Amino acid sequence: EPNDFVGISFWLISMALVASTAFFFLERDRVSPKWKTSLTVSGLVTLIAAVHYFYMRDVWVATGSTPTVYRYIDWLITVPLLMIEFYLILSAIAKVPGGVFWRLMIGTLVMLVGGYVGEAGYLAVWPAFIIGMIGWAYILYEIFAGEASKINANSAPKSVQSAFNTMRWIVTIGWAIYPIGYFFGYLTGSNPADSAAALNIIYNLADVLNKIAFGLIIWNVAVTESEAKH
Amino acid sequence: EPNDFVGISFWLISMALVASTAFFFLERDRVSPKWKTSLTVSGLVTLIAAVHYFYMRDVWVATGSTPTVYRYIDWLITVPLLMIEFYLILSAIAKVPGGVFWRLMIGTLVMLVGGYVGEAGYLAVWPAFIIGMIGWAYILYEIFAGEASKINANSAPKSVQSAFNTMRWIVTIGWAIYPIGYFFGYLTGSNPADSAAALNIIYNLADVLNKIAFGLIIWNVAVTESEAKH
Amino acid sequence: EPNDFVGISFWLISMALVASTAFFFLERDRVSPKWKTSLTVSGLVTLIAAVHYFYMRDVWVATGSTPTVYRYIDWLITVPLLMIEFYLILSAIAKVPGGVFWRLMIGTLVMLVGGYVGEAGYLAVWPAFIIGMIGWAYILYEIFAGEASKINANSAPKSVQSAFNTMRWIVTIGWAIYPIGYFFGYLTGSNPADSAAALNIIYNLADVLNKIAFGLIIWNVAVTESEAKH
Amino acid sequence: EPNDFVGISFWLISMALVASTAFFFLERDRVSPKWKTSLTVSGLVTLIAAVHYFYMRDVWVATGSTPTVYRYIDWLITVPLLMIEFYLILSAIAKVPGGVFWRLMIGTLVMLVGGYVGEAGYLAVWPAFIIGMIGWAYILYEIFAGEASKINANSAPKSVQSAFNTMRWIVTIGWAIYPIGYFFGYLTGSNPADSAAALNIIYNLADVLNKIAFGLIIWNVAVTESEAKH
Amino acid sequence: EPNDFVGISFWLISMALVASTAFFFLERDRVSPKWKTSLTVSGLVTLIAAVHYFYMRDVWVATGSTPTVYRYIDWLITVPLLMIEFYLILSAIAKVPGGVFWRLMIGTLVMLVGGYVGEAGYLAVWPAFIIGMIGWAYILYEIFAGEASKINANSAPKSVQSAFNTMRWIVTIGWAIYPIGYFFGYLTGSNPADSAAALNIIYNLADVLNKIAFGLIIWNVAVTESEAKH
Amino acid sequence: EPNDFVGISFWLISMALVASTAFFFLERDRVSPKWKTSLTVSGLVTLIAAVHYFYMRDVWVATGSTPTVYRYIDWLITVPLLMIEFYLILSAIAKVPGGVFWRLMIGTLVMLVGGYVGEAGYLAVWPAFIIGMIGWAYILYEIFAGEASKINANSAPKSVQSAFNTMRWIVTIGWAIYPIGYFFGYLTGSNPADSAAALNIIYNLADVLNKIAFGLIIWNVAVTESEAKH
Ligand SMILES: CC1=C(/C=C/C(C)=C/C=C/C(C)=C/C=O)C(C)(C)CCC1
Ligand SMILES: CC1=C(/C=C/C(C)=C/C=C/C(C)=C/C=O)C(C)(C)CCC1
Ligand SMILES: CC1=C(/C=C/C(C)=C/C=C/C(C)=C/C=O)C(C)(C)CCC1
Ligand SMILES: CC1=C(/C=C/C(C)=C/C=C/C(C)=C/C=O)C(C)(C)CCC1
Ligand SMILES: CC1=C(/C=C/C(C)=C/C=C/C(C)=C/C=O)C(C)(C)CCC1
Ligand SMILES: CC1=C(/C=C/C(C)=C/C=C/C(C)=C/C=O)C(C)(C)CCC1
Repeated sequence: EPNDFVGISFWLISMALVASTAFFFLERDRVSPKWKTSLTVSGLVTLIAAVHYFYMRDVWVATGSTPTVYRYIDWLITVPLLMIEFYLILSAIAKVPGGVFWRLMIGTLVMLVGGYVGEAGYLAVWPAFIIGMIGWAYILYEIFAGEASKINANSAPKSVQSAFNTMRWIVTIGWAIYPIGYFFGYLTGSNPADSAAALNIIYNLADVLNKIAFGLIIWNVAVTESEAKH
Repeated sequence: EPNDFVGISFWLISMALVASTAFFFLERDRVSPKWKTSLTVSGLVTLIAAVHYFYMRDVWVATGSTPTVYRYIDWLITVPLLMIEFYLILSAIAKVPGGVFWRLMIGTLVMLVGGYVGEAGYLAVWPAFIIGMIGWAYILYEIFAGEASKINANSAPKSVQSAFNTMRWIVTIGWAIYPIGYFFGYLTGSNPADSAAALNIIYNLADVLNKIAFGLIIWNVAVTESEAKH
Repeated sequence: EPNDFVGISFWLISMALVASTAFFFLERDRVSPKWKTSLTVSGLVTLIAAVHYFYMRDVWVATGSTPTVYRYIDWLITVPLLMIEFYLILSAIAKVPGGVFWRLMIGTLVMLVGGYVGEAGYLAVWPAFIIGMIGWAYILYEIFAGEASKINANSAPKSVQSAFNTMRWIVTIGWAIYPIGYFFGYLTGSNPADSAAALNIIYNLADVLNKIAFGLIIWNVAVTESEAKH
Repeated sequence: EPNDFVGISFWLISMALVASTAFFFLERDRVSPKWKTSLTVSGLVTLIAAVHYFYMRDVWVATGSTPTVYRYIDWLITVPLLMIEFYLILSAIAKVPGGVFWRLMIGTLVMLVGGYVGEAGYLAVWPAFIIGMIGWAYILYEIFAGEASKINANSAPKSVQSAFNTMRWIVTIGWAIYPIGYFFGYLTGSNPADSAAALNIIYNLADVLNKIAFGLIIWNVAVTESEAKH
Repeated sequence: EPNDFVGISFWLISMALVASTAFFFLERDRVSPKWKTSLTVSGLVTLIAAVHYFYMRDVWVATGSTPTVYRYIDWLITVPLLMIEFYLILSAIAKVPGGVFWRLMIGTLVMLVGGYVGEAGYLAVWPAFIIGMIGWAYILYEIFAGEASKINANSAPKSVQSAFNTMRWIVTIGWAIYPIGYFFGYLTGSNPADSAAALNIIYNLADVLNKIAFGLIIWNVAVTESEAKH
Repeated sequence: EPNDFVGISFWLISMALVASTAFFFLERDRVSPKWKTSLTVSGLVTLIAAVHYFYMRDVWVATGSTPTVYRYIDWLITVPLLMIEFYLILSAIAKVPGGVFWRLMIGTLVMLVGGYVGEAGYLAVWPAFIIGMIGWAYILYEIFAGEASKINANSAPKSVQSAFNTMRWIVTIGWAIYPIGYFFGYLTGSNPADSAAALNIIYNLADVLNKIAFGLIIWNVAVTESEAKH
């Protein structure tokens, strides 16, 4: 099993997620009340993910097959939470119309449902992929060209502005890793075992970036802003 | 089991409820004392529901039948708690006669007892449904046309007023999902397995809305009002 | 087991007691120091009862017989705690002679010992019942006509006064449910299974009222008085 | 087992001890720093005793024999802790020479070693009893006629003075129950089963008084004094 | 097993260590920040020791042989921690050269390695004993005649000074019990079972003194000094 | 197993890591907010390491072979955390370009990947060793001659400056122990069992220094600086 890199990566990330959860919850007590919610949410994202990673690792080690159900359950809870983070940051800058939030949610849902029907075999993998891509494209449209993009006014403190930008790029670059994983997992035509390994390794790496690094960005703004206020 | 959407939804919601519980209890420490109780109650609702969802999932996965008993026990505890939330919000606006609270309780009891005698087979499903509907109709009457409706005076802070309105619509629209679930579960005449699946999926979705979203609305008022006071 | 209403009620109440315990302990941090003790005691009452309800449910589900021993152990700890609550409220009003407390305790002991010797079969059910009734009558005498009754002077804050009155009626009306339970359990001559069911259902309902509702009354005074003081 | 009063009393007291521990540790946060130590110690006494009562009950239920070893281990830890409580109260009144503390400790050790060699059969029960009595007598001498007795000067606050007096009487009257237990357990010549039952029932009742009631007295002074200081 | 005094003493001390750990961690919140570290360390000493005592008792009860490995692992962690305590107290008095700390550590290591090679049979028991004694002698030299001894200037508060002195005597008298244990365990030539019993009883008694009593001395200074500062 | 020094060292270090974790998290509450993060990270390092040491010990005791996978997973999480510590200290001195951090990370990755491919047998042990050494050399270059080295301006408080220096030497001297371990484990040509023992003992000792001692240095600066500010 020293060769089972997928299994190792599940374990590695479980541990990192547990540590991140502890980190976010502990650090919560040193930021100002307003930012506490953001850290609570970051900690919940990693907590929920940690639980699912333990289950996913068990499935992988016991059966060698991709734990699709657990992964999508995890995403269904954590992606909306990330969207909420986004929204909380936006709200720290300006009054944000509720519609922005719901449009982001719909984009998310289309993206994840697309992915799931493909991975679970309800739809051919290519059409499902395209549905998922449309959902994601819609989110990108919303935050780069839609209403949400206009909000990031210059009135916001510098650290918040830059956090918003970084998060925008995470949703672009960081999230792009997931469809790449899907691609190597289902669309290359290579043998199932290799595909499964590629799929999970890539998804796992993407999760580190999009769950832990995302949380750390939030934490960084939270601490900077809280100290500024004193 | 990637096809067992009901089982998946039980799991998904258990996780979301656990996360919500952590969220409400953690956020409790940043609102003013008066609102702490509301968050305590929101957290208790999701905590109790989380426990019952774990049990319900076990029943479902092991036997494939509807876990009626656990669901009604859950409702019997959480619906009164939601009524208490309602009452706490109302009391934040004006002195509310105790009678309002008790009338809401009676409506709840009639509604749930109606549902249970139908689902557990003590009464034919149609008459039981009607009893339940009467209980619910009474609650709606009370909050839209009865004494409770008159309380929501304009003197209340804006965010409280709008919370009251949202909650009123949750009890109307959000709760309406439950009888729809009952309808698809018992009154369409389709085969038992499909009915059971429909019933549980619909009830579960309704619970997400009425437990978690309801709690988030409370949390939102609590935070807004607490910050306003500083 | 959807028909085993006694078993269901044990489960239902266990859950409600757990939730109440969490509630009392969480709310404890928002009342003034003086009232913290009252909430501690309320929380202990429900905590101890929760533990015993889990055991009682196990006994009931496994054997179908009445868990007399656990119930009386529970009462032997929780009734004195309720008496202490009573005494704490009284002391918040006026200097209360210690004798009041001890007389209430003796009444309690006579009442519970009477009940136990009857239910466990050491004495015929009727004479035991009468002994228990005498104990209870003595408590009622003490709080309505004895020394304790005279203490509730008009000098006390309004909410405390009304709490005292409510508690007085709980000891009268709320506690009256227990002998009714005993009556249906042992003195009607109907068949053992039905009697056992009636007995436990009635006792359980009484416990909800006398443990949880009692605690909520205390909590209500505690919160009202704490806020008044600010 | 509804007839196994000894077993019932072990269970009953375990529960009461757990509740007391929770009580003392929770209440600790509302007294002034100086009195926190006293409540810590009271809580430790009941915590340690709770653990040992669970073990003692297991021994009793499984074998029907007296759990002598666990009981004396418990006493060996808790009696010195009670002595420390005593000393802490004394020190709250006046500078107490360290020798007082050590003399009380020696008396305790003689008393408990005497009891153990008798109960475990290393010495005939009568001589062992007398050794134990001498140890206890020495403690009584120390606190009624020796150096400790002179300390309780009138300069101390009233509640502390009266606490000191109550504790003195607990050591006299409350502790007197233990040798009575020993007497009924070993010196009456009745049959072993009855003796064992009598012994354990009496010891258990004595523990309620000397552990829980003792702690409540401390708690009462702590609360009274802490409030006085504000 | 009422005759297995060694086993009893393991149990007794485990309990006392658990209680001490709770005590030090609870009391930590009432001393000034500076002294918190000292209490943290005291609590860690007893916590680690408690864990090892549970393991040691298991070994003893199961095999009747001396749990040498666990004991020395325990010492290897706790003795340096005690040295750190010492150093913290010294630093509270004056700027202490780091060299003092390292020399104490080397002495400790020589002492414990000497003891272990003797007890585990790598070296004859006498030469090993002498190596251990040399290590200890070196520590005594350092604190009575070496650099550390000169530090205890008169500028320190009285309670700190006297604590330093007491700790010095604990290292002399308290630690002297260990070589005595070693002597009775290996150097008297009596039969193995008796030697093992003697060894463990003596080591256990020594641990009570050097772990719990040592911690209480620290706690006493911490509380006294913290109150003085107010 | 008193001769299994490797197993003993795993146990010993697990315990020490648990104690350190408790220490860092407890002490966290007495430093100023800014330094809390550093202690959180130190505590996470020892927490994660503690978990992995328990697993490693199990592998070692059960199979007698080197737990390479767990060790490298541990390093992959904890070394970046140490780098973060480094970076946090640097940031406390001056504005540090993000590039420094990423270059340190890359060096770390090269070093660890080099080591793993060698130990897990993907590459011959010598070339893998050289790759690892290059990664480490790069880190040393960065902190002694690169951008990071220039940051340690004289403007920083003395304790921070000296901490930076100490950490620099830990990365040089402390980390040098690991390649020595690798050398004795794979490059001496001695028999497998001895090599494995040497490897693990050396790695374990190195971890004590680089995890616990490193954390204590951080803690020391944190406390000193926090007190200075008052
Ligand atoms: C576009 C696309 C996908 C995108 C998935 C994404 C973007 C998931 C993000 C998950 C996150 C951010 C989790 C964090 O906790 C799929 C479904 C793989 C396949 C279909 C095409
Ligand atoms: C009207 C009606 C029903 C309504 C149930 C409702 C409204 C349940 C609400 C539950 C909630 C809000 C739980 C939250 O925790 C039944 C009994 C299904 C069937 C009979 C007709
Ligand atoms: C009068 C009477 C009884 C009363 C019992 C009562 C009043 C119990 C109260 C329990 C409470 C209040 C528990 C709360 O935690 C018995 C023993 C049933 C039978 C004999 C007559
Ligand atoms: C005099 C005497 C005894 C006294 C025991 C006592 C006084 C025990 C007290 C225990 C307490 C107070 C525990 C509280 O936690 C023995 C040994 C039974 C027998 C010999 C004579
Ligand atoms: C001198 C000497 C010894 C001393 C041991 C000591 C002094 C141990 C102290 C342990 C403590 C203080 C633990 C506290 O947690 C040995 C090794 C028994 C034998 C060799 C001679
Ligand atoms: C140079 C080198 C190595 C260095 C490893 C190091 C330096 C590990 C540090 C670990 C730490 C500091 C952990 C703390 O938690 C290897 C991979 C052994 C072998 C190849 C050459």
